[in-house]
Amino acid sequence: MEKLYFASDYQEGAHPAVLRRLCETNLLKTPGYGLDGFCEAAREKIRAACSCPGAAVHFLCGGTQANAVVIDAFLQPWQGVLAAESGHISSHEAGAIEWGGHKVLTLPQQFGKLRASVICDACERWNTDANRAHMVMPGMAYISQPTEYGTLYSLAELEEISGVCRAFGIPLYLDGARLAYALACPGNDVTLPDLARLCDVFYIGGTKCGALFGEAVVISDSGRMEHFFTIMKQHGALMAKGRLLGLQFDALFTDGLYLSIGLPAIHAAERLRGEFLDRFGWRLAFASPTNQIFVLLDNPTMERVAEKVEFSFWEKNDDSHSIVRFATSWATRPEEVDALIAAIE
Amino acid sequence: MEKLYFASDYQEGAHPAVLRRLCETNLLKTPGYGLDGFCEAAREKIRAACSCPGAAVHFLCGGTQANAVVIDAFLQPWQGVLAAESGHISSHEAGAIEWGGHKVLTLPQQFGKLRASVICDACERWNTDANRAHMVMPGMAYISQPTEYGTLYSLAELEEISGVCRAFGIPLYLDGARLAYALACPGNDVTLPDLARLCDVFYIGGTKCGALFGEAVVISDSGRMEHFFTIMKQHGALMAKGRLLGLQFDALFTDGLYLSIGLPAIHAAERLRGEFLDRFGWRLAFASPTNQIFVLLDNPTMERVAEKVEFSFWEKNDDSHSIVRFATSWATRPEEVDALIAAIE
Amino acid sequence: MEKLYFASDYQEGAHPAVLRRLCETNLLKTPGYGLDGFCEAAREKIRAACSCPGAAVHFLCGGTQANAVVIDAFLQPWQGVLAAESGHISSHEAGAIEWGGHKVLTLPQQFGKLRASVICDACERWNTDANRAHMVMPGMAYISQPTEYGTLYSLAELEEISGVCRAFGIPLYLDGARLAYALACPGNDVTLPDLARLCDVFYIGGTKCGALFGEAVVISDSGRMEHFFTIMKQHGALMAKGRLLGLQFDALFTDGLYLSIGLPAIHAAERLRGEFLDRFGWRLAFASPTNQIFVLLDNPTMERVAEKVEFSFWEKNDDSHSIVRFATSWATRPEEVDALIAAIE
Amino acid sequence: MEKLYFASDYQEGAHPAVLRRLCETNLLKTPGYGLDGFCEAAREKIRAACSCPGAAVHFLCGGTQANAVVIDAFLQPWQGVLAAESGHISSHEAGAIEWGGHKVLTLPQQFGKLRASVICDACERWNTDANRAHMVMPGMAYISQPTEYGTLYSLAELEEISGVCRAFGIPLYLDGARLAYALACPGNDVTLPDLARLCDVFYIGGTKCGALFGEAVVISDSGRMEHFFTIMKQHGALMAKGRLLGLQFDALFTDGLYLSIGLPAIHAAERLRGEFLDRFGWRLAFASPTNQIFVLLDNPTMERVAEKVEFSFWEKNDDSHSIVRFATSWATRPEEVDALIAAIE
Repeated sequence: MEKLYFASDYQEGAHPAVLRRLCETNLLKTPGYGLDGFCEAAREKIRAACSCPGAAVHFLCGGTQANAVVIDAFLQPWQGVLAAESGHISSHEAGAIEWGGHKVLTLPQQFGKLRASVICDACERWNTDANRAHMVMPGMAYISQPTEYGTLYSLAELEEISGVCRAFGIPLYLDGARLAYALACPGNDVTLPDLARLCDVFYIGGTKCGALFGEAVVISDSGRMEHFFTIMKQHGALMAKGRLLGLQFDALFTDGLYLSIGLPAIHAAERLRGEFLDRFGWRLAFASPTNQIFVLLDNPTMERVAEKVEFSFWEKNDDSHSIVRFATSWATRPEEVDALIAAIE
Repeated sequence: MEKLYFASDYQEGAHPAVLRRLCETNLLKTPGYGLDGFCEAAREKIRAACSCPGAAVHFLCGGTQANAVVIDAFLQPWQGVLAAESGHISSHEAGAIEWGGHKVLTLPQQFGKLRASVICDACERWNTDANRAHMVMPGMAYISQPTEYGTLYSLAELEEISGVCRAFGIPLYLDGARLAYALACPGNDVTLPDLARLCDVFYIGGTKCGALFGEAVVISDSGRMEHFFTIMKQHGALMAKGRLLGLQFDALFTDGLYLSIGLPAIHAAERLRGEFLDRFGWRLAFASPTNQIFVLLDNPTMERVAEKVEFSFWEKNDDSHSIVRFATSWATRPEEVDALIAAIE
Repeated sequence: MEKLYFASDYQEGAHPAVLRRLCETNLLKTPGYGLDGFCEAAREKIRAACSCPGAAVHFLCGGTQANAVVIDAFLQPWQGVLAAESGHISSHEAGAIEWGGHKVLTLPQQFGKLRASVICDACERWNTDANRAHMVMPGMAYISQPTEYGTLYSLAELEEISGVCRAFGIPLYLDGARLAYALACPGNDVTLPDLARLCDVFYIGGTKCGALFGEAVVISDSGRMEHFFTIMKQHGALMAKGRLLGLQFDALFTDGLYLSIGLPAIHAAERLRGEFLDRFGWRLAFASPTNQIFVLLDNPTMERVAEKVEFSFWEKNDDSHSIVRFATSWATRPEEVDALIAAIE
Repeated sequence: MEKLYFASDYQEGAHPAVLRRLCETNLLKTPGYGLDGFCEAAREKIRAACSCPGAAVHFLCGGTQANAVVIDAFLQPWQGVLAAESGHISSHEAGAIEWGGHKVLTLPQQFGKLRASVICDACERWNTDANRAHMVMPGMAYISQPTEYGTLYSLAELEEISGVCRAFGIPLYLDGARLAYALACPGNDVTLPDLARLCDVFYIGGTKCGALFGEAVVISDSGRMEHFFTIMKQHGALMAKGRLLGLQFDALFTDGLYLSIGLPAIHAAERLRGEFLDRFGWRLAFASPTNQIFVLLDNPTMERVAEKVEFSFWEKNDDSHSIVRFATSWATRPEEVDALIAAIE
């Protein structure tokens, strides 16, 4: 029997609308490096969806690459990036940020989120430290929506963080690798125009949200990063056939697809959460309203389920319990959810 | 009227067999990061095509990225990479190699090629320089097949270069961004097994050779670079959906497709070279047997042709003449060649 | 009235024996870059003092430079360095390690010290993490003797740490910026030969211990770092007049001077600690047996003392108390201690 | 018999006035990191000598370090530094500039000098290259006075170079490792105020010009590099006892010492040049008016002289001839010149 896959949200190819677009246009000839009409059309649609006509939009291949290029582009050499200890750049990018020369200044998190007051304290502490000229200066704040724990910043929280960053003059960067799952979540009150208004730069995730691959970096003030193109090239992040990325984001931003593409994942996750709690009596490791479900399992249960289902081992909780993650995606079908529930029973 | 496109070989999407493979498998679920069965199958086919069962094969997204990751992985911090002045890494990668901390040690070229004797002299010069401990040590040699000028190394030349590199204990790296056009060229006598035997590492170009995107790095001795995966991640070069690259190379290495995929480009280029010389009386800037044709045009002719055709401006020759490049590709159809000839007349 | 200086141990020039040596030899001519006889003599004396005839000894200008060069030389690109959160490289070197491309993997400390078990846990956690190929690998452990809090590792602790590092195959590096103050401390049981035996690399601090400037890096196995000289040059850390460093360390290692040079500092610190506690009723922020005394003062007292004495503000404790540091040095005279006590009263 | 040393100008210690200053002040206590009064006094004297009251002056330890820090501070990540092929940063700094992430864009030289027209052409070529966004942008011009071949820029040449740099908006940086020998040269017409007026940043060499060690970086517009202190620290280039550098430059800029300190070297070199040509019939490899003399010797002569004299082998000229360098210094005495002449005869 084939295993059931709930290990992550990058296990399938692309949404059919995206693939169709690539097929239809396959033999058309265009200029390279993102200077083609498809990229330009996608940029226009993204600017419109963000209500941010002055934004620069750049397309990159993946999340770690987007983080490394954006952070390197925005920071001065003597600056570091503030991030939660649980932030992806802190722990799971093989030191890509440090390889680029910058320290990740880790701060305590709460359910995967940075609080405005924590950022504020860190900046004030640096500002008032007698040794600050010997220390790495906070030069950017990095947050994720949803976070690495599947949680969401509320609009009020995001406004407060943005306010602190502006008060200290540091740009706010939001990693939206799974942004479609935030946007599709009933409890979410943060829109794309909010992100463009409150962040200095963010990326709209494609790889985990219906594209074959690709992330769209949105720099709210297009005049700010004149040399971003060359910095991309220097990082090996500029695609010769940039149109591939433009075509995909054009499809994702046609008829509002990106805003609804996460719905099947959210519905599947809600149903699973309900069954995990009510039917199986499992405990959530922490509450998350999006497409990632973190549960605390005793080890024999974990091992039994693992025989039939691919999920992610998250971390050891104690000697007899573990935290594991089940992830749904835009491609998850109700039958797969049924099968998972049947497999656990 | 639409313009005719002969500016480069990355203007279309993918070969139909590649696209078909992506479509057929689109909703299958696989593990991420290149650990899936499609990648493994592609690796096996590439090892077989190279007669190199012990090779490690890694898939990357593009040429500059492949160069940066490979060179960074193989060099020690105090070493630089020998390359022709005309080498892609020397001039057209926005300093990606230096950004990674390494000097490109440029050497004179002849028709885009490095000669073995030039590499030998450079290594000997360093070895015998009283100040060598204050200088960047040659730690790798970089060549391209075909070269940036469309020319080819013969097997004899490659054997000689390989011999010099081994004598001095430095790895030989071959950039095969356009390798399919070398392999399809009647005058070529260098095979994939020759490359695996004579180089320490090389990459088989996909982006310009029928893939949507992607390059396959072949490290002849798989035990040599244990941490290549992590180095890829650190460079932002590890795709979450690594299967996309595996699927494409699986298609390209099924039924020998990669060995013949360049033929239409070579035929088109041969016909164009003949017409340029015989019908229009143009002069070649240098002889190249592959899919790039460099011609010397007087400026009024160049401007007249530019009204109807997209080609690449290469460089100014003198005040009244320029060198321009016409490139064909795996996708070039005979009708397009006809149209180009008609457009020039 | 001149202020009394107890802010640090790098406020004077050099020990008279060091200065005399520089003066005596001033107009002699020697080769550059540390290839002279004075450097060679100093290396021999250090090897003898460490009972480590096979050691390589390199002279650098300062502590941050020594840390950056050593860590960069020993780590592979995908590795990071384990360090206490309070480690100098973590916080007060302006990101020099990250600028060199490496992550500082911070671990919790106790009185400024890393425990062997904490290093062991970190290595095991990495070894067993399913995502370890996406994470920075621990490639070295960094400790300081005395620590940044003036505390000392015992021989037993150091042996345990060394054992853990060897079990996991990672080099142990000890920062001895203030090593003379450890060696002069009655409670210390770690000798130079112990350091050479238990560490893979360490540095013997000169700048804070009687030299004008300079640190001697000792690599226990001289065959290990063949290219250290070139790495120094690449970091801008190779002195043209390397003899200046050799001469100073030659003086410091003549007649055991380095082993006793810290005594005046230790005596002064002991006396101050006694008076602070007994006469003034102050509280120590933490116990330290070396030349740094950390006291907890209420803010009015701190401000009153600051009018007459230069000391280091360490950190805010609560709204009404602060932690401040008084440092003695090899040059501290009993009269200065008397004056300090009188000034506080 | 002891050998005669004419291999370089960093073979002795310091000028007596410098050493005296260090001795006199040895036990005075000052704050660290260049924030002391001696550094401030030296800065004031240098600003006065340069007629540049708005300059920032920073003290570094050596030439390669100064080059690496300055170039890294001034360049943006996507920029490289223009330099002569013979420039010190191009060839003899072990890749320190590339290690910092920047390409050295080498240009042809004439007698070690860059011509204004060559810089202008390079900038124009970049500006008009269709691929410039894929290339390293010229972001600074680096020249040396005297050059690595001992030659001098005239004021007219320097004004022309400065004009070109300003026209293209790139800073001009002058490496003055041996500046005292230029200033003492009868044929020189470039003063310190000229340098401050025409360059954006330059350094006044101490190590080779009478200091024990140290270089003074002068940034003409002090507002330009607010974070230079932290960049120094990040490079491991900030001395704890910064006063050592301040004291030395204070001595060198008292009573115009720096302007005359090179005279003995110039006189000795002039006499040697005369004797080499007239008495021994040797040929100069190229004319240089400063303290470095490059002669072309047949190999038997070279070997004979080498038995008694330390000089620098420069490069092989042909199978039977070599170019060698004799260097004089501020410390060269007439008797040593006599002895050298006698030794050659």
